[in-house]
Amino acid sequence: MTSQETALDKRFALAKLLAQEGGAMALDYFNRRDSLVIETKRDLQDVVSIADRNVEKLIRDRVEVLFPEDGFLGEEFGLTAGTSGYTWVVDPIDGTAPFVNGMPNWCVSVAVLHEGVPVVGVIGAPCHGELYAAAAGRGAKLNGKVLTLDPSRTIENALTGIGANSHVTPEAVADIVSRLLQAGGNFIRNGSGALMLAYVAAGRLVGYYEPYMHAWDCLAGYCLVKEAGGWYHPFPTEGERLTKGSPVVAAGPGARAALAKLAQLD
Amino acid sequence: MTSQETALDKRFALAKLLAQEGGAMALDYFNRRDSLVIETKRDLQDVVSIADRNVEKLIRDRVEVLFPEDGFLGEEFGLTAGTSGYTWVVDPIDGTAPFVNGMPNWCVSVAVLHEGVPVVGVIGAPCHGELYAAAAGRGAKLNGKVLTLDPSRTIENALTGIGANSHVTPEAVADIVSRLLQAGGNFIRNGSGALMLAYVAAGRLVGYYEPYMHAWDCLAGYCLVKEAGGWYHPFPTEGERLTKGSPVVAAGPGARAALAKLAQLD
Repeated sequence: MTSQETALDKRFALAKLLAQEGGAMALDYFNRRDSLVIETKRDLQDVVSIADRNVEKLIRDRVEVLFPEDGFLGEEFGLTAGTSGYTWVVDPIDGTAPFVNGMPNWCVSVAVLHEGVPVVGVIGAPCHGELYAAAAGRGAKLNGKVLTLDPSRTIENALTGIGANSHVTPEAVADIVSRLLQAGGNFIRNGSGALMLAYVAAGRLVGYYEPYMHAWDCLAGYCLVKEAGGWYHPFPTEGERLTKGSPVVAAGPGARAALAKLAQLD
Repeated sequence: MTSQETALDKRFALAKLLAQEGGAMALDYFNRRDSLVIETKRDLQDVVSIADRNVEKLIRDRVEVLFPEDGFLGEEFGLTAGTSGYTWVVDPIDGTAPFVNGMPNWCVSVAVLHEGVPVVGVIGAPCHGELYAAAAGRGAKLNGKVLTLDPSRTIENALTGIGANSHVTPEAVADIVSRLLQAGGNFIRNGSGALMLAYVAAGRLVGYYEPYMHAWDCLAGYCLVKEAGGWYHPFPTEGERLTKGSPVVAAGPGARAALAKLAQLD
């Protein structure tokens, strides 16, 4: 094992641990959200914000102690540059709308970049008891089971995930839906982009497209999709670009061309 | 207790039992779907069709023995008229696309009509360990916990479920998405209309709209929504009309007007 592999494997092991520990903390907030609203005299959105920050803090603190030379970007506390070439990119709770509304479709997303490329991707979905984990050259697994994408799945014979937020106009979202359906596809939107990217890696969705997402929403999913045999459209990771939004597109091998067309990449 | 109440309560108790037994059978197929494809040398879609038929048969057979005078409409085996004034309306697996693709968003839906009105609605979501149950005048519960809709939830501050199938044009679906977003709303589509209606009853979604659904997809959900304090647009249940498609709209009290507008009911 080279020192490069050792460095990656140590971070991969920690990422899995932190996605699980962060997931357990988030699940505890989720299950107690109604009583927390009463106890704290705050609204649900505030309770989720507190959960979001505390889960990110848990993960950030552990990384700082064990890999103080690594960079760290989280949704809640922004970017801290590192010196090791490794940068952690974390969304403590992806899918806060489902979380606030009591739906199970949310997750904890932990990615590690090496020189700007996602080399670790771990996504924990606590309500479903699922842990998706991948590292460069080591494959992708769901709860320990190897994920391998089936090239016979296409947008016509499978489901495609889509997402959108206030950065995208209603007309643009409607246009995506319309073109996907016209191409013979069908869509799912479960409220968590990171979880839908994990579903692409697991072959549950054949692709995912969202016109504007952040690094913490997509990089763990990207690593998972690639290691399962799929494709993704690179996310800009140089310097401050890492903190800005960009289109996110990923697909299994049988849907790459259709997703690139849907996202109008060519 | 009047005989009317007794008749309803007996059917309500059986509906809960059958949603659970049917759910357990469907979950067993779901968990074994990959090995079943290999064993039976059939494709996944065939395996789901077999599961669908066998779950409906389980429910239909039990109802026939215990309430031989009741009518029965199932997605798989059609309508059998009854003489008691009660008709069971069952979707053995709602959300076959998520089921086939390995996603947890599917459910077993069991409704009972009395003189055309849904008086029992039970929806079991086995992957989530959830049983939604309502009967006329007896309230709605999720795993035994009473569901009461919050009138302060609107399409602006909550999520709305939408659905569509091949009966609806891509342009019509895109138009629904566009108008919902323009009205300040946001959408979820998890692939199971019945489950999204149960989510309306649970306050997880503030409303649901699908331009064309069948009775077995919506009637259990309708009973749940009404008993939780919500509203639904009536589904035609007279004679053969019960077997045809129709628009489905349901909402919590704070979103009724917005959903009626979205569905262009006025």
